[in-house]
Parts: sequence; structure tokens; C-alpha cells
Amino acid sequence: MSVGIVMGSDSDWPVMKAAAEAVADFGVPFEADVVSAHRMPTEMIEYGRAAASRGLQVIIAGAGGAAHLPGMLASVTPLPVIGVPVPLKYLDGMDSLLSIVQMPAGVPVATVAVGGARNAGLLAVRILAASDARLRAQMEDFQAELKEQAYAKGEKLRAEAAALKR
Amino acid sequence: MSVGIVMGSDSDWPVMKAAAEAVADFGVPFEADVVSAHRMPTEMIEYGRAAASRGLQVIIAGAGGAAHLPGMLASVTPLPVIGVPVPLKYLDGMDSLLSIVQMPAGVPVATVAVGGARNAGLLAVRILAASDARLRAQMEDFQAELKEQAYAKGEKLRAEAAALKR
Amino acid sequence: MSVGIVMGSDSDWPVMKAAAEAVADFGVPFEADVVSAHRMPTEMIEYGRAAASRGLQVIIAGAGGAAHLPGMLASVTPLPVIGVPVPLKYLDGMDSLLSIVQMPAGVPVATVAVGGARNAGLLAVRILAASDARLRAQMEDFQAELKEQAYAKGEKLRAEAAALKR
Amino acid sequence: MSVGIVMGSDSDWPVMKAAAEAVADFGVPFEADVVSAHRMPTEMIEYGRAAASRGLQVIIAGAGGAAHLPGMLASVTPLPVIGVPVPLKYLDGMDSLLSIVQMPAGVPVATVAVGGARNAGLLAVRILAASDARLRAQMEDFQAELKEQAYAKGEKLRAEAAALKR
Amino acid sequence: MSVGIVMGSDSDWPVMKAAAEAVADFGVPFEADVVSAHRMPTEMIEYGRAAASRGLQVIIAGAGGAAHLPGMLASVTPLPVIGVPVPLKYLDGMDSLLSIVQMPAGVPVATVAVGGARNAGLLAVRILAASDARLRAQMEDFQAELKEQAYAKGEKLRAEAAALKR
Amino acid sequence: MSVGIVMGSDSDWPVMKAAAEAVADFGVPFEADVVSAHRMPTEMIEYGRAAASRGLQVIIAGAGGAAHLPGMLASVTPLPVIGVPVPLKYLDGMDSLLSIVQMPAGVPVATVAVGGARNAGLLAVRILAASDARLRAQMEDFQAELKEQAYAKGEKLRAEAAALKR
Amino acid sequence: MSVGIVMGSDSDWPVMKAAAEAVADFGVPFEADVVSAHRMPTEMIEYGRAAASRGLQVIIAGAGGAAHLPGMLASVTPLPVIGVPVPLKYLDGMDSLLSIVQMPAGVPVATVAVGGARNAGLLAVRILAASDARLRAQMEDFQAELKEQAYAKGEKLRAEAAALKR
Amino acid sequence: MSVGIVMGSDSDWPVMKAAAEAVADFGVPFEADVVSAHRMPTEMIEYGRAAASRGLQVIIAGAGGAAHLPGMLASVTPLPVIGVPVPLKYLDGMDSLLSIVQMPAGVPVATVAVGGARNAGLLAVRILAASDARLRAQMEDFQAELKEQAYAKGEKLRAEAAALKR
Repeated sequence: MSVGIVMGSDSDWPVMKAAAEAVADFGVPFEADVVSAHRMPTEMIEYGRAAASRGLQVIIAGAGGAAHLPGMLASVTPLPVIGVPVPLKYLDGMDSLLSIVQMPAGVPVATVAVGGARNAGLLAVRILAASDARLRAQMEDFQAELKEQAYAKGEKLRAEAAALKR
Repeated sequence: MSVGIVMGSDSDWPVMKAAAEAVADFGVPFEADVVSAHRMPTEMIEYGRAAASRGLQVIIAGAGGAAHLPGMLASVTPLPVIGVPVPLKYLDGMDSLLSIVQMPAGVPVATVAVGGARNAGLLAVRILAASDARLRAQMEDFQAELKEQAYAKGEKLRAEAAALKR
Repeated sequence: MSVGIVMGSDSDWPVMKAAAEAVADFGVPFEADVVSAHRMPTEMIEYGRAAASRGLQVIIAGAGGAAHLPGMLASVTPLPVIGVPVPLKYLDGMDSLLSIVQMPAGVPVATVAVGGARNAGLLAVRILAASDARLRAQMEDFQAELKEQAYAKGEKLRAEAAALKR
Repeated sequence: MSVGIVMGSDSDWPVMKAAAEAVADFGVPFEADVVSAHRMPTEMIEYGRAAASRGLQVIIAGAGGAAHLPGMLASVTPLPVIGVPVPLKYLDGMDSLLSIVQMPAGVPVATVAVGGARNAGLLAVRILAASDARLRAQMEDFQAELKEQAYAKGEKLRAEAAALKR
Repeated sequence: MSVGIVMGSDSDWPVMKAAAEAVADFGVPFEADVVSAHRMPTEMIEYGRAAASRGLQVIIAGAGGAAHLPGMLASVTPLPVIGVPVPLKYLDGMDSLLSIVQMPAGVPVATVAVGGARNAGLLAVRILAASDARLRAQMEDFQAELKEQAYAKGEKLRAEAAALKR
Repeated sequence: MSVGIVMGSDSDWPVMKAAAEAVADFGVPFEADVVSAHRMPTEMIEYGRAAASRGLQVIIAGAGGAAHLPGMLASVTPLPVIGVPVPLKYLDGMDSLLSIVQMPAGVPVATVAVGGARNAGLLAVRILAASDARLRAQMEDFQAELKEQAYAKGEKLRAEAAALKR
Repeated sequence: MSVGIVMGSDSDWPVMKAAAEAVADFGVPFEADVVSAHRMPTEMIEYGRAAASRGLQVIIAGAGGAAHLPGMLASVTPLPVIGVPVPLKYLDGMDSLLSIVQMPAGVPVATVAVGGARNAGLLAVRILAASDARLRAQMEDFQAELKEQAYAKGEKLRAEAAALKR
Repeated sequence: MSVGIVMGSDSDWPVMKAAAEAVADFGVPFEADVVSAHRMPTEMIEYGRAAASRGLQVIIAGAGGAAHLPGMLASVTPLPVIGVPVPLKYLDGMDSLLSIVQMPAGVPVATVAVGGARNAGLLAVRILAASDARLRAQMEDFQAELKEQAYAKGEKLRAEAAALKR
């Protein structure tokens, strides 16, 4: 159980699911749960405090608006915490982003893009891979595959562009 | 001891002091303390949880950047919590403002202007005055005084403007 | 009749209704009306000026764009005024938010999130509860219920996440 | 007395003075005063309501932050109201600008640049000149003079640039 | 022919039409045309330069994005120019607003809200009314009507709110 | 083959196609391809490094979000690089714009509007036309045509406006 | 005389000078002048219209606030126009940037960073170098030199960092 | 040598130094260097590509403006890359933040606050501590110390506040 994926509400799941899928793709064990900073603060503190001893190595936390979950978890665990700014109905996630990334000196949160849950999963894998050569090799394979996909897209696009010229 | 004024660090005091002064001007008892969401989360939760039973009726919380203190306190107390966005070195307090005001449905924070600690104090007085006719009368006197000061400023300005015309 | 809920136009009602519902859920008496700062300024001033003597204890005011209603009401009443930034077609409510929250020293408005009418209602309840132990207990029950709901959502989410692993 | 120049506080005068100077340069009579939307709302309403009958033809109103003065005056007078967003300590006047310009349909405010009091004065002159051929001719002279000044600056700059080439 | 309404493209007409309608409602003569700063600069300059002698008294100019039309017209006419920031597909009109309102000292543009063409028309009427008592009376009637409409909306809303209480 | 049009993914093609069409309209030879800064960095560097010797004279690069492609290409080629900020799902392209335009001194990118691929194509043509009199004449014809189209739109609009007056 | 460097006022020269210096460093002939869109519109149009026949190949235009100069020049010349957003006292150049970069389809401006005049000069050189192999080689030398400087800075920094470790 | 700290220029060192100090405080070996994405792209790619095999486990990269260094390094290494948005003269680091955090799916960068180099160092320590129990214990000690410091500040503040009451 090395990665904990938590979010303030199940309404964040459509965004946060991509983090779970990325982690699962690398065969890394994970758990996912609703842990709300504002609706169950004591349990949230408890979740963070117990995380390391329960065997978690990285926490991914998604939240929107006045997004306090990632920062609060980071304040009660020595583990690296990855924050995913979930965009809400207004402001395009700018509130979520600033609420997560602008942490005071002493308590860092590793922030990814607005709605960037997939990258949160990949960052968790990189963190684990920092001291796991096998996982690092897997990440390198994944990066090589990204390149292959980009190449394939190029082929298709070159054909479409050629059509424009005629 | 009806108003609790807390902030994440003593570096917020030069801004937050104005809240204490406003409250003191109305003769309302208050306390002020450092309660950091990120550096002492358990104590922060404890502060919020005990506030009502300790006799506090309103909490004023100032914080900057990823400003989680007001919202976290609001999640553990049924008291009204007033949030003051403290501006930091960059972004002019826009991060502080959004981190405080954009709370999810269920847990409100009464937010005032960036750096608006004086108004936080006055809002606390208004809240107490909502069920205290004597304090409400004091607030009305204060508002009348604001008008007098504005008048006086007008007199001075009319003189300066008249000078322009010659 | 302890809470007055006003807005600049009936087109704000779909947003502002949530304030009325929240207040009603706690059994707090309220009234709702159209009071436009720009279309009926004299009546608006009159509404604010008479509010306390009519028995109102808190005013909730929603407005969008150059949102002047909450601040203007706050200038003519000693009661606490809660401002709800109503988002309009453009700018995602950022104009509404800044027009409401950035009040000058002397006249505070308790601002909630863009579109956060439900929280405005809950804040009004907290303000009344500051000197009403029974209402405060009700708010604590409400907060406990929020926790229960979050738990229930967690259960559902854990199941969905487990499905991902297979 | 055709132009009324008002502002929320005498602290706005260093910015607003430029409006008075521009108006004075064209020999247009004016008055200047402190009229605060938030500190003397009744008097503010009264000022707007009496403006036309007192012989004012244009009102220039400067305000900062949650800047309600221009819009509130526009709601109680049929005269054209020019709004000057006064920049405050934070947010570079963006709050002032949005609070003034984003008026709802029905009640327009003629908004100029952040801190653009000089242009507010010139706009007032243009408005009066719309039905005053002599004043319009004066404005055309002023515009011709602007061109001459720009020319003169060009001469100086060409010399400085020539020095660079050697 | 006292008001000229121009815009950079006929795609701005759905927004700008409201300016023409407002002006027409007051019986003020107007013309409307496409005058593009970027696609027909010489003609645009010519339009501005001839405006006053052709009998126009006010120009309303709508433009989006890098919106140069209002400011360029203001530089070649002594007439008051009203700028309407037309929102484009991205950025919600913030680019249009800043491109219009932030004019340098010497050349003012009277800017209204993003998409605020109706208010541009009403502002043009107010400008003409500044020296036309009959038109000013009409504007006062219009403002009284706005109040009546707001009242009527209040009635409807009070009924809906009453239903909530049961 | 004088213009190279590249983008990070084929999902950018619906936006970037307009660049290819503009270039093609002027009979300027071009190529289009997927060249991803983040998915195939070595190939991207290689593309930029070989561009001039392969006969390219201008590169157009479109990218969204943390848009690094235009700036990275500019760092490995002496050719002019035009950057197109592609808007993504959130933030309306503001992130793309700032990531492209705010290049450090030494390595310029010629940035166009958010989603402004057509203008990127036209800018490439202008760049080639800077030392090609025939192409410059074509660009002048194109500009004359823009004027004709604007005129035609004016005619249509004048008719619609006339209808309003009746 | 291949590069024309113009700006709205000589107050832009401290920023714009860097463009002239960059161009001069490459031995490219240039001229610099004040050409104001708002203060001398006819002359500005004339400058743009005559530019190509006078032998200019690229125009660099700097402007601040509602920055119309680059776009207006682009509308009357077929030459490539580079726009430099000059930051003014408020808004950090964001208004200048949007007013320059957000040009409508048909009339491109090659925009550089806020205050990025040096890059404007380098971009002009790249544009000329697109069809001038000797100048392109010079640009490659310049880029090689940038690398050398970066290396040298690295050496210094490694020493400072080493000191930290002790 | 487990942490590599790189930046685009030695002018970033006054900000980035705090990352080195944080890492050094935990006794974690590090190196610091200038590696510029735009001035030495090949070497930058090389640095990233060799990082893992040279024994680095985490890379911290600081950059300002169109900040491409963190994202480009992340694209050529499987290691976790931490990005520090360095604020430049204008825009308060908002450009740096968006250029770093808004990475496309596939290539994550762990972003910290604007100017948040100290937190970048602490995040690197947490990442290493994810699989190093001793280092994790050290981080817990550090967090306990933060709490002690906050307490001490509270004591001082309580005294200052008490003085206000008299």
C-alpha cells in the first residue's frame, strides 16, 4: 500500500481517478478515499499522522476552491504530499492552484497542473522510483512510449497537412 | 473573553494588530495568539474546538499565501470565523484572498479585504452587537463619527481646490 | 424575522435561494426581497437604515458585477452584512468578489465565495448562534452530519477505486 | 459651476487633483469635495440628487478598492458620471477598476484608466464641448499641442539614438 | 444625426445592437457602421476627423481583443468617445477592457462594462442630456421606470421566498 | 520548404491548421509536423538545430499550458520563431501565452494572440516578404482585400441599423 | 536603414533603448523616433505607410497601457511589426501585453515579453537573417556566446554552493 | 550526491540558495549549477539525461518568466523534478508559476510556491525520506521544531496584545 489518494469529496473522483489509473499502470499499490479537511478535520489529521506508519510512502491529495487538504496533510506527515488543484465551476481552478501551491516555508506541497491528476500519479511513481531502479526503468519505458505515440501522431498530421497543399 | 484573534505567525501581527485595536476601542474583551495551521495543526484544531466552551463568541484569523487557518478553524467550531487575507511579498494578497474566501458549501468564512484587519475587528463587534443593543448603539456612534471625519476632510479639500482655481 | 436576504434583481434568486434554504433549515425566520442599489437607491438606503429597528439581526446581500449592494447596506446599518458575489456572464464573478470584499476601513462586509449563497445562510446562522446556545448546538449537529455524509461518500469511493485495481 | 469633482477621502486628492487641473486649464468652472459613499451615504445620495438642479453638468468621482461612489452617484442623477479607479496599496487598482466599470445595464459610469484623473477632467471637457463649439475648438487646440510636444520629444530621442550608433 | 455607433466588424453587432436600441428608445438620431481600426485605418481616421463637422456629438465604438478603435477615434476627434469592450472567445473580455480603458493621459475614452453596449447608449444619452433639459427629464423618467421594474420583481420574489418557508 | 509549422500534439491541429492555410494562400511552401518538447525532446532539439540548413526560414510553433516548444526551438536555431498560445481546457490560454511570450533576454519568440494561428501564418509571410518585394506586394493586396470585406460588412450593418430606427 | 524603432513617448526610451543596442551590436542600420498613435495619429499612419518604400524591413514599436502603436502600424504596412509591451506604473505591463498581442485575425504583431526590448532587437535581427546567411552566422555566434557566459556563471555558482556545504 | 540544484542563471542564486541550505541542514549531499534551458539547451538535455546514472535522486530546478528548465529536465529524466517559480521584475512570478506547473499529461513537475526555494529543498528531503526511515525521523524532528518556534512566537505576541488592552 504505497500511495494514498485522497480527496475532499466524491465529486472530485472523475478528476482524481486519473491519478489512480496512472499509479495502477505501474503496478504500484494504492488506496483511495474521501478525506475532507473541512468536513472531517479530526479524521483528516489522523489520516495524515498515521500515513507513514501504515506503510504509505506518498500521499496524493486533490481539492478545489479554498483547497486546504494537501497543505494540511503535509503539516502532519513527513511524507511527500502531491496536491492536485481541482477546478470548480468558477475561476477555472486558479483559486485551487493558489490555495495549494503557495504554502509557507517549512511545509511543502508538490503541486501539479489544474486538473492534472494523471501527472500526480506519475509524480508519485517517480518519487518511489527515486530509490527503486526497477521502477525507474519502467518510467523510462513509459517515456519512450510517449515518444512513440508522438511520432505516430506526427505521421497522421503530415498527411493532413500535405492534403492542404493541393 | 469574547473575541479570539489568531494568526499563523508573529510576522502577521503588524497587519493583525488593527483588528485588536478596533475590538479594544469598543471595550470588547479579546485575546490574541499565534495559532499556525501548518506548524501546530493539532493545537490549532484544539483551539477551534475549545473556543466556544472557553467563552469566545467570534474568531478572527489572519493568514497569508495558502491561507488555511480561517477555514480550518471554521471546520471545528460552530462560531463565526472572520478571515483576514494577509498580503505576502508576491501576488498582492490575491492568493491569500482566494484561499480564504472560496470555502466549500457547509463551512463559511466571513472574509474581509486584503490586509483589512481593522474591518475584521469592526465586523466582530457588529456580530456581537447583533444581539446586544448597547453595543449596536456604540457602533452607530462610531458610524456617525466616520461621517464627521469625512466632513472635516471635505472642508480641507474644498480649500485646496479653491486655491487651484486662482 | 431575524435574517434579511436581499439581492439586486430577481435574476439573482437562483443563486441566492440557497441562502434562504440554509437559514430555513435551521428554523431561523427570514425575509427575501429585491433591493437594488442602482435602481432604487433611496429605498435601499431606507431598507438598511430600518433593518435593526424592524428586528433584523443579520443582512445577506447578493449582487454581481460592480456589486455595490452589500457595501452600501453596511454603510447604513450597524448590523453585520454578509455579501454574496453573484457570478455574471463574464469574468467568473471576480468583479463581483472584488467589488464586495475590498471595502475601505470602517465599513466591513462579511464576504463568502463566488456563488456561495448557501454559506452565506450558514454564516448568518453562526452569527445568531454566537449568542444562542441552542442554535450553536444545532450548528454542531449540522457539522457532525457533514462528517457522516463525507464518510458515506468515502465508502462508495473506496469501492470504485478497488474496482480499478483488478 | 459645471463640473463636480468628488472623492471618498482626501487621501484620493493627490490622484484626483489632476482632474481639477485639466478642467481648470480649459476655464471650465468646477467644485471639489469629499463625498463618501460608505461614510456619509445620505449626503452622497443628496449630492447626486441635487447635482443637476444646482447646475452641475458632469460629475467626476474617484474611489478605490470596493469603489462604489461613481456607480451610486450615477444611480441618483441623470447626469453623466465619470469614474476614476484610484489604486490602493494592493492589487494595483484592479479592484477599483472592476468595481467602477462593471455596472449593470441601466446605470452607466464612464470609466477611465487606473489613476487616470487627468483624462477624467479632459473627458468632462469633451462632454461639455459636445454642445459647445468654442470649447470644442479649445479641445482641438489642446490636441494639436499634444502633437507638437510629441514632435519635440522625437527630436530629442533621434539625437540620443544617433549617439548610440557611433 | 447626433450619435455615431461604430464597430470593427459586423460580428460585433449582436453585442453593439443594444447601444443603438438604447439611443433609439430616447428618440436620439444615430447612425451605425463598420469602421475597422485594423482593416481600414485611413477610413477610420477619416471617420473620426469628420465626425464633429458632420454633426455627430458622441461616438460609441465597440471592439474586442486588442481593441484599438475607441482610442484611435478619440485621438482624432474632440468629441467624447464611449468604448465598449466586446468579449471574444477567450479571456472573457479582459483584454478588450484593458485595451480600451488604459488610455494615456491626454486622450480619454469613456469605458463601460464588458459587453455593456446598452449602457454605452444610455451614457451617450446622458452626455447629450447634460445640455438638454428635455432629454434629462426623459432620463429621469427612465430611471423612475427602472425602479418600478425592480419593485415588481421584488413582489414576485417575496412570493417565491414565502413558499420556501412552508 | 520555407516555413516549418510544428506543434506538441495532433490535438493542436484544429487550431494550428489556420497557420498552414494562411501560408498556403500566399503560395509559400511549408511543412507541418508533431514535434513535442516534452515527449520527444531530443528530436525537438534536432528539428530546431537542422531547420536552417534544411532550408526553413521561419518556424511556427504552437503549444498549450506550460508551452515550452516555441522557446526551446528558438534556443537552438538562429531563425525567427513564431509562438502560438494554444488555449487548453482551463485558464483560457493565459498560461500558454505567458509561457511563450515571457522569454528571457537573448532568446526571443514572436508571440501572437491566444489561438491566433492564422496571424502566425500571416506573420511568417510578412517576415519572408521583408526581403521579397513580390511577396510584399501580395501582402498589400491581401490588406486591401481585408478593407473591401470590412466595407461590405458595413453596408449590411447600415441596413440592419436603419431597420432599428423605424 | 533597415530597422525602424518607434515609441509613443520619450519616456519609453529607457526601456526601448535596449532594442536599439541589440540591433546596433549586429551592425544593422536603424533609426529611432517618437511616433505616437494617440498624439500624432496622422503622422503615425504616414510613418507606417511609407516605411517599406523608405527601405525599412522591420518595425519595432514599444507602447504601454492601452498600447495601440504596434497594431496600428501593422495595419498600414506589409512589413513585420514587433511589439514591446512597456510596463507602466500600475498593472505590471499586463494591460500593455494584452493590448499588443491580442490582435484580430488578419493583422499580426510579433509580441515579445513585458519590457523585452532587447529581445525585440534580436528578433529583428533574426527576421533579417532569415534571408541573409552572413547575419544568420552572426546570430549563431551570439548564441554560442550566450552559452559561454552561462558556463562562466555556473563556475562561480558551483564555488558558492561548495562553500555552503562546509 | 543525491540532489541536483540547477537554475537558468546565477541571478537566481539569491532565491535558490535557500533550497541548498534546506538540503544541507538535513545532511543530504547536493550539487548546484547553472543549467540554462535557453542558453545551453544541449547541455541542459545532457544534464537531465545523465542525472540518474550519476547518482542524483531528485532534481530541483529554479527559473523565471517563460520558465522552461524544470519541465524540460522532467522530459529527459525519470527522476522527480521540483520546480521553483522565480519571480522576475514584473508580474510577481505568476508567469513563472504557470510556465512550470501547467505541464501536459505525461511529464509532471512538482511545483512549489513563487520564490519557495526553501520548500523545494524540504520537499527533496521528504522525497528521499519516503524510503529512508532515518531521514523521515529527522523530518519529524524538524516539524516538531517548527511547532516549538510557533509557540515561542505566540508567547511574545500574547504579551504585545496584553499591552494593547491597557
